[in-house]
Amino acid sequence: MTRRLPVVGILGGGQLARMLSIAAAPLGVRTLVVDSSADACAGQVTQLLVADWNDDAALADFASQVDVVTFDFENVPAETAERLASQVGVFPAPQALAIAQDRLAEKTLFRECGLNTPEFMPVDTREDLDRALAVVGAPAILKTRRLGYDGKGQFRLRSAADADAAWEALGAPAAAHGLILEAFVPFERELSVVAVRGRHGEFRIWPLTRNWHTDGVLSLSLAPAPDTSDALHEAATAHARTLAERLNYVGVFALELFVRNGELLGNEMAPRVHNSGHWTIEGAHTSQFENHIRAVLGMPLGDTGARGCAAMFNWIGDMPDARPVLEAVDGHWHDYGKEARVGRKVGHATICAPDAGSLRERLVSIAGALGREEQAQPAVDLLG
Amino acid sequence: MTRRLPVVGILGGGQLARMLSIAAAPLGVRTLVVDSSADACAGQVTQLLVADWNDDAALADFASQVDVVTFDFENVPAETAERLASQVGVFPAPQALAIAQDRLAEKTLFRECGLNTPEFMPVDTREDLDRALAVVGAPAILKTRRLGYDGKGQFRLRSAADADAAWEALGAPAAAHGLILEAFVPFERELSVVAVRGRHGEFRIWPLTRNWHTDGVLSLSLAPAPDTSDALHEAATAHARTLAERLNYVGVFALELFVRNGELLGNEMAPRVHNSGHWTIEGAHTSQFENHIRAVLGMPLGDTGARGCAAMFNWIGDMPDARPVLEAVDGHWHDYGKEARVGRKVGHATICAPDAGSLRERLVSIAGALGREEQAQPAVDLLG
Repeated sequence: MTRRLPVVGILGGGQLARMLSIAAAPLGVRTLVVDSSADACAGQVTQLLVADWNDDAALADFASQVDVVTFDFENVPAETAERLASQVGVFPAPQALAIAQDRLAEKTLFRECGLNTPEFMPVDTREDLDRALAVVGAPAILKTRRLGYDGKGQFRLRSAADADAAWEALGAPAAAHGLILEAFVPFERELSVVAVRGRHGEFRIWPLTRNWHTDGVLSLSLAPAPDTSDALHEAATAHARTLAERLNYVGVFALELFVRNGELLGNEMAPRVHNSGHWTIEGAHTSQFENHIRAVLGMPLGDTGARGCAAMFNWIGDMPDARPVLEAVDGHWHDYGKEARVGRKVGHATICAPDAGSLRERLVSIAGALGREEQAQPAVDLLG
Repeated sequence: MTRRLPVVGILGGGQLARMLSIAAAPLGVRTLVVDSSADACAGQVTQLLVADWNDDAALADFASQVDVVTFDFENVPAETAERLASQVGVFPAPQALAIAQDRLAEKTLFRECGLNTPEFMPVDTREDLDRALAVVGAPAILKTRRLGYDGKGQFRLRSAADADAAWEALGAPAAAHGLILEAFVPFERELSVVAVRGRHGEFRIWPLTRNWHTDGVLSLSLAPAPDTSDALHEAATAHARTLAERLNYVGVFALELFVRNGELLGNEMAPRVHNSGHWTIEGAHTSQFENHIRAVLGMPLGDTGARGCAAMFNWIGDMPDARPVLEAVDGHWHDYGKEARVGRKVGHATICAPDAGSLRERLVSIAGALGREEQAQPAVDLLG
């Protein structure tokens, strides 16, 4: 009798699908990835099916080969997810995905769930923008409701005088998907909750992560976030759990939060494994990637406790010299096997240590050897 | 400009090639595996070339696609390794492989390097066997000089009266490759050194591992070996280093040792990543698999320190219920994706803990839930 291994289908073949596939293998779980590009980097570590989201025949074939479907990429068209869901289990469910795809629906849900957000208003026309600026005030950020990520599809308005320039930049997408004007919040820090919910409602979160962005792209994460009170941790956990239950969410997700005057504000929810959870590969007992695979297949969730402290550097554009990280104690290199390209996430490194003091020492030494002192500085300061 | 990722070619496509490939991916390293079976389990996680060791054309094509060649399986014919070495770097070198393939050459080398061994004598004929029994005494073990592993190709003689039966069992292989009679040593414990040597002579060892076998197959490992004096650790390290330097060895290898009256005796050397080093995936800062990939490509070696304590259970024949391990804190499941078969290594589980006391507690609880109390008992006793 031939043994059939479970197969998780993944829509999108980037680094998240790659790391999900690497985490699936020790569980005896196979993956099958769909991407429109034959060069998708997950194809280096698992089977890749090259197809577009509107290729119904290819996707039906894909669905017939897998036990469940999940996502590397949240901007898969809702119709694609729904069509697949008529054939096979899709986790998270298309309805949860649809809400996370739409900044307006997402922020509305945050408020319904008791999580405050920066002021916001929908904007569909040039006139809406003026009305929204009168309510939200300036500075503010005009964003596409859909398909934005890593700072793309955004325009920052310093004052109402920037309205014409903002409309010029983003008026065209407004017609298709709508826009949202959000107040620019002078937050003190940015945290994320990475959480997982199983098919039977089990819920776990990893320790809160402190994040720093550069040009809208995550640059550095530190976990467990060192300056977080128990009250803040509990509030963040409660918000994540409420959202997950409301959406009947299955799998890993991230909730990005601002802290302003000690209050948590919801920024956005990513309905998938998340860059701010990459440190969990070596820094936690079970990684976000392994727990996502476990969750979507209905396996027991693994412990999400941290092993110590961890910092993650994102590598944007091209890979630095690996040597200082490879030579460091508990330094871990992640090269996604991608071509270099301006602004592209091509890899990351995680540095672990048993305590904050030794993590600080390692960061100072590694960042110096890499010439990345500036990138490391916020974590070094906080650990000092 | 297209980026070319380094490719490590691996001869043999079993679980070792599988775990090497999983460890290679985060380094931005690809693997290409050759195996005679299209079902080889490494083929689930990397590219598999199906070919026999004597298929010169296929192997030449393989060599042209890789940067270096290494082994999942030490019994690759020496001629195959040498032919490949004329095309591409092969690590460990065919000469080192040849010695580790031959129990007589290996034990002779151990003694030349100052590492004592149980008494042994070569046996090529029925008459040799009588002469060897007279010297070595009984009980003793008659073994094939080549191609033996996991207790295969061995016959245990309780007394000289068993000589005919032993010859009947192993006389045929004697003609092809020769036999060796080894004294049966009533050892107190069995340890292994897992070590790595880089292309520029860098040398590191992981903490010593204590091993227990059942029917000649590894059943349980515990690391760092809890009852090991500094003197024993230093002696084992020195022997491993001397052997590696003598062979100009590159990559990971394991040296299996017996302890008798406080003295180390060399049992055998495995010229590859080794079952007794599987605990390093989660239990050490750098795993044996990652360091082997680094070593053969000339990258810096990673730190081999332990994170705490670890115990590894081997799963032989078929996989037990995963749930008790998946639910345990710092419990790690490894399913090789193989078909069940009597005596076959199909997976393993590693349980980690910060200290011996908590490891003992976790082992008792997990072994109980699995109904594997007997398998865990030696480690539980030692940790108590």
